[in-house]
Amino acid sequence: MPLKAVALNATLKSSGGEPSSTDRMLSLIAEAMRKEDVETETIRLADHNILPGVTSDEGPGDAWPDIRKTILDADILILGTPIWMGQPCSVAKRALERMDAFLEEKDEQGRMISYGRVAAVAVVGNEDGAHHVSAELYQALNDVGFTIPANAVAYWVGEAMGSTNFVDLDDVPEVVTTTVDMLARNTAHLAGLLKEKQYPGEDDSGG
Amino acid sequence: MPLKAVALNATLKSSGGEPSSTDRMLSLIAEAMRKEDVETETIRLADHNILPGVTSDEGPGDAWPDIRKTILDADILILGTPIWMGQPCSVAKRALERMDAFLEEKDEQGRMISYGRVAAVAVVGNEDGAHHVSAELYQALNDVGFTIPANAVAYWVGEAMGSTNFVDLDDVPEVVTTTVDMLARNTAHLAGLLKEKQYPGEDDSGG
Amino acid sequence: MPLKAVALNATLKSSGGEPSSTDRMLSLIAEAMRKEDVETETIRLADHNILPGVTSDEGPGDAWPDIRKTILDADILILGTPIWMGQPCSVAKRALERMDAFLEEKDEQGRMISYGRVAAVAVVGNEDGAHHVSAELYQALNDVGFTIPANAVAYWVGEAMGSTNFVDLDDVPEVVTTTVDMLARNTAHLAGLLKEKQYPGEDDSGG
Amino acid sequence: MPLKAVALNATLKSSGGEPSSTDRMLSLIAEAMRKEDVETETIRLADHNILPGVTSDEGPGDAWPDIRKTILDADILILGTPIWMGQPCSVAKRALERMDAFLEEKDEQGRMISYGRVAAVAVVGNEDGAHHVSAELYQALNDVGFTIPANAVAYWVGEAMGSTNFVDLDDVPEVVTTTVDMLARNTAHLAGLLKEKQYPGEDDSGG
Repeated sequence: MPLKAVALNATLKSSGGEPSSTDRMLSLIAEAMRKEDVETETIRLADHNILPGVTSDEGPGDAWPDIRKTILDADILILGTPIWMGQPCSVAKRALERMDAFLEEKDEQGRMISYGRVAAVAVVGNEDGAHHVSAELYQALNDVGFTIPANAVAYWVGEAMGSTNFVDLDDVPEVVTTTVDMLARNTAHLAGLLKEKQYPGEDDSGG
Repeated sequence: MPLKAVALNATLKSSGGEPSSTDRMLSLIAEAMRKEDVETETIRLADHNILPGVTSDEGPGDAWPDIRKTILDADILILGTPIWMGQPCSVAKRALERMDAFLEEKDEQGRMISYGRVAAVAVVGNEDGAHHVSAELYQALNDVGFTIPANAVAYWVGEAMGSTNFVDLDDVPEVVTTTVDMLARNTAHLAGLLKEKQYPGEDDSGG
Repeated sequence: MPLKAVALNATLKSSGGEPSSTDRMLSLIAEAMRKEDVETETIRLADHNILPGVTSDEGPGDAWPDIRKTILDADILILGTPIWMGQPCSVAKRALERMDAFLEEKDEQGRMISYGRVAAVAVVGNEDGAHHVSAELYQALNDVGFTIPANAVAYWVGEAMGSTNFVDLDDVPEVVTTTVDMLARNTAHLAGLLKEKQYPGEDDSGG
Repeated sequence: MPLKAVALNATLKSSGGEPSSTDRMLSLIAEAMRKEDVETETIRLADHNILPGVTSDEGPGDAWPDIRKTILDADILILGTPIWMGQPCSVAKRALERMDAFLEEKDEQGRMISYGRVAAVAVVGNEDGAHHVSAELYQALNDVGFTIPANAVAYWVGEAMGSTNFVDLDDVPEVVTTTVDMLARNTAHLAGLLKEKQYPGEDDSGG
C-alpha cells in the first residue's frame, strides 16, 4: 500500500492572492515525494477557519476536525511556514496548538494517536530564520508524537536584510533541489519502516 | 504628564469563558504599574478580529488599526501570552506579525514610529517555556523598535509536566510579586527617560 | 546483534565534585535502555578537554576524536544537558559544534557518516527551559544526520524561579519515569529499524 | 564623563589564526561607537581560559574575574558571536553562564550589580540564524540585568546554505553599515540616560 502525505501550507495569504513562496517549496517537495511513490495532498490553512484552542474540535464553524482527519489518514506530515520576524508564523502556530490535543488522545498502550507518523518541515523567508523555525517545529511536532527523519527540513532564505521572495527566484538553487530530494527520500523511507512496524507501546509483552 | 501603558492579553480564549491565567498576571502588573503612576489599558486580543498579514491595515473588518493606535498612544507595551508547547501562542504571534509593519514606518531620521516606547512581557503556563517565550518576544519587539528594560519579564510556570493553572493558585507566590514590582519599576523608569529624551535618529546634528 | 547507546553528560561540573542532576536523569535512561536490551556507555564531557572548533580533530590534546569514535560506534546518542538561563549549556554546545563536521563527512551516496543513528535528549534544571533546550538539540542533531524518535526528551524542571535540583528530589516523579520508559522504548525501536534498513542515499537504484 | 564599552568576541578561534568575521563586525561597531564618543575595548574570549561554572570566580587559573571586572567598569556590553548550527556558539554561552552569577549579586535595593548597563549584540554567519541568536542573547543578558536599546543587533548572514564569510566580503553591505550606526546611536543614547539616572530599586522612597 503506497504512502500518503499531507502538506499544510501556513502562509498568511489565502488562495487567489499573490503567489506563495511556501507553496513553491511545498510543490517541490510534493514532486520529489512522487518519485518516492508518495502522493501528497496540500491544504492551505489560511483558506480555512481554524478556531483558536487546544482541543480537537472547538465547535460550530471549526475547520480543524476535517484537517485533523486528513493528517491522521496520512503517513507523513509536511508543515510549511513562512518566516516572519525570524520565527514560525501565527498560522503554523495555530495548527500546532490544535495538535496539542494529541497529547491526551492515547491508545491503551499509552501511544498518541499520531504515533508512527513522520513529519518534515518546509521553511521560506526573505532572510534569516530557517534553523530556528525548524527547531520550534521539530520540538512541537515531536512532543505530539511525530518522528523526525534525518535532515527533515527544506528551506530557503536570502542574504541578511534581503527582500527577495523564494517564489520570485528565476531558478531554484541546486542546493535546495538536493535538500528537497533528500528530505523526500528520508521521510518516505522512515514512514515505510514505521508503517510496517509501529512503536511498541507501554505493554507489548502482554500477559 | 503621566505615562500610559497598554497590555495585550494573547490568551486563546475570548472574554466570558474560563478565567485567563494571562489575565491574572496582567492584572498584577497593572496594579504594580499604578503604584508607579502608570495607567494600563488591557486589550484581550481574542475578542477582536485581527486579520492575518504584515501591514498596518488588512482591510474591511480588520480590528488591528484600532489596536495599533492604542499601542502608539501609549508609552509602554506589555505583551502577555500563555505558553503552548513551550512556545508563544498563535494570538501573540498574530499581533507581532502586525507590528512587523513598523519596520517600514519611519520618520525622516530613520526611526520607526514605535521608537521611544518600552516593552515588557508576561508569560504563564502549566509548565516550562517562559524563558524561551520571553526570548522570542524580546527579539520580535526589539526588531520593531521597542526598548527592553532590565528584567522585563514576569512569569509563572509549574513543575515539569504539571497541569495547574496560574489562575487557580490560591496565592500568588512571593517571587512573582517581587518580579512584577521590579518589572513595573524598571519599565516606568525607562519609559520616563525615553519620553523625556527620545533616541536621536540618523541626523540630529542637523545642518 | 544488540544495540549500543552512548550518553553524553554535558554538566558543567567534572566528576568527583557535587552530584550531577543530568547524571541522575541519564542513569534512569540507561536503566530503561537496559530493559530494551540496549547497553549505554556514559561520557562526562567536562572530564575531557574538547577543543573549540568545528572539525573532527582540532589537533594535539583534543579529546574529541575518541568521543566521536564512541558516538559513531553506537546506534543511539543520548545528549544530556543542564539548563542555564533557559538554554542548553556551553558544554553541550561545544559537543554539537564538533558534530558540525559530519555535514562534510559523507559517503558516495551523499549520506552523512552519522546517518541511521537515532538521538534523544535529557534535560534538567531548577526551573523552566526544557522545551526550548530540546528544540535546539533536536534541530542541531537532526541537521547533522540524526533521526529523532517520537517523544525523544526526558526532562525535569521545578516551578518558576525554584532552586531545587533534580538530584536532590527524594523520589523521581512518576511522570518522569513514564517518560523515560517511553523514550527508551521508542529510541530502541527506531534504532533497530534503521540498523536493519539504513536510509537509501542519493542513488540506490544505480547500476 | 565619556561612556565606555566592552566588546566580547566569542569566535571559536584564538587570535593569530584565521581572521574572525565576528571581529570585523565588532570593529565596525567600535568605529561607530567612537563617533558617539564611546571608547570600546575588545576582548577575544578564546584567548582566555574561562572555566566552566556559574559563579564569578571558579578558582585558580580562571580568567573570568578580570573579564567580569572589565564588564562592570563599562557602561555598555557588546556581545559578538558567530553562528554555528543556527545557534549562539559555546564560547558565548560560557560567558553568559558566568554572568548568571549577577542574579545573586544585588545591592540593598534588590538591583543586580549589572543594572544600568546597556547591552547590544553582533552576530555573523555564513547563512541563517541571526534572529534566533539575538533572541537568546537578549533574553540571557536581560535576565542578568542588562537593558536592551531599540534595534540592538548588527548582523550579517549569507543566503541559505551559503559558505561565504563576512570577513571575506569585499565591501560591507550598506544595510549593515546603516544598522551598525543605528545600534551605536541607540546604545550610547540609552547608556547615557541610565548613567545619569539609574533604575530606582526596591525602596527609593524610603527614609
